[in-house]
Amino acid sequence: MKITEQERKAVYKTIYNRRDTRAEFLPDPVPDEVLKRILDAAHHAPSVGFMQPWDFIVIRDNKVKQSIKNSFELAHCEAAQMFEGERREKYRSFKLEGIMEAPLGVCVTCDRSRTGDVVIGRTANPEMDLYSSVCAVQNLWLAARAENLGLGWVSIIHHDALKDILAIPEHIIPIAYLCIGYVSHFHEKPELEKAGWLPRMPVDSLIHYEQWRKPSSV
Amino acid sequence: MKITEQERKAVYKTIYNRRDTRAEFLPDPVPDEVLKRILDAAHHAPSVGFMQPWDFIVIRDNKVKQSIKNSFELAHCEAAQMFEGERREKYRSFKLEGIMEAPLGVCVTCDRSRTGDVVIGRTANPEMDLYSSVCAVQNLWLAARAENLGLGWVSIIHHDALKDILAIPEHIIPIAYLCIGYVSHFHEKPELEKAGWLPRMPVDSLIHYEQWRKPSSV
Repeated sequence: MKITEQERKAVYKTIYNRRDTRAEFLPDPVPDEVLKRILDAAHHAPSVGFMQPWDFIVIRDNKVKQSIKNSFELAHCEAAQMFEGERREKYRSFKLEGIMEAPLGVCVTCDRSRTGDVVIGRTANPEMDLYSSVCAVQNLWLAARAENLGLGWVSIIHHDALKDILAIPEHIIPIAYLCIGYVSHFHEKPELEKAGWLPRMPVDSLIHYEQWRKPSSV
Repeated sequence: MKITEQERKAVYKTIYNRRDTRAEFLPDPVPDEVLKRILDAAHHAPSVGFMQPWDFIVIRDNKVKQSIKNSFELAHCEAAQMFEGERREKYRSFKLEGIMEAPLGVCVTCDRSRTGDVVIGRTANPEMDLYSSVCAVQNLWLAARAENLGLGWVSIIHHDALKDILAIPEHIIPIAYLCIGYVSHFHEKPELEKAGWLPRMPVDSLIHYEQWRKPSSV
């Protein structure tokens, strides 16, 4: 099936305007059919050996969100201690999650034993199933953006806490906790770029030819 | 910026029609501006703490491709030994890569030390930088599909071999070796699904509410 030029532009528009949302969530509920569409898009990510190792836990209950938020706060305090001086103050000034504000939380996991011990494509690289679940996260993120939904990945949380709160079985690996909802607006640039924390790298500096060496332009 | 309904449909069309391409590559060269567009789309993936840990090694040289192919063959032989009986025969019957046929190879990597030891969002979960590079792979894959380019992820290869062939420094982690090129056609379904290796799981069986438990429909 051919993708037209207009459709291609829509894909790029979505990729370039995707943001990690923290402070802009609106309380408006996300319709069930929209949630279903973005989860089904995630389910159509590539997976190693077609194992589809992901599950999706949808969280709407404020009590569950509050437990997640408490776990974030603990990991966030620990993290602040790791930065020195001005960087610590700046770190503390950032809003890094919208757990309570976002109407939806979605935890994406990986079931490494889903289709047995031997999986096509996972034999030399056992991490491939985890990577498949990450591809599902990225599909979900772009689908959400295409629905004009903000999404924020909360990685400042210990996975043992997530497993405990969400009753995730021992053998299942949490990959991501995502906050999802409609937003007041999307930032034009990543917030850490805007705040001067780190600059956007020139893409040409990241492209090599034939071997790892000094880049030349494409 | 608002995504229109038509643009949203284009994103879903691209997500649902993305395939892992192995046997359908055409020798037609990929124009430099197209390559540049898909690499820049990858570069606009989300990254933990805005660290942009990825690099892209572009391979066009047949000698380099042949070395990659030889390494695949070794890992492929090892893998076949892990399957039993009929599964082994079936495994051997699959074409799992298009290394020589695809005009382009792209190796995506992760530089874990790019922005220093302490990275916002990586403090509790050190794997987050690897996951950022995987998000770049998925952006690249969808951008390629939007350009009507096939892409196949070759994971049956040892990363030490990849590092050796591509002169990747010790501290850089290979994430993916991708074959990219125009194709005769895209399969309607994943090939492993079509071959009856594994079925597509019903998405409702993968969705849980509030906690990990028996799913109900969205």
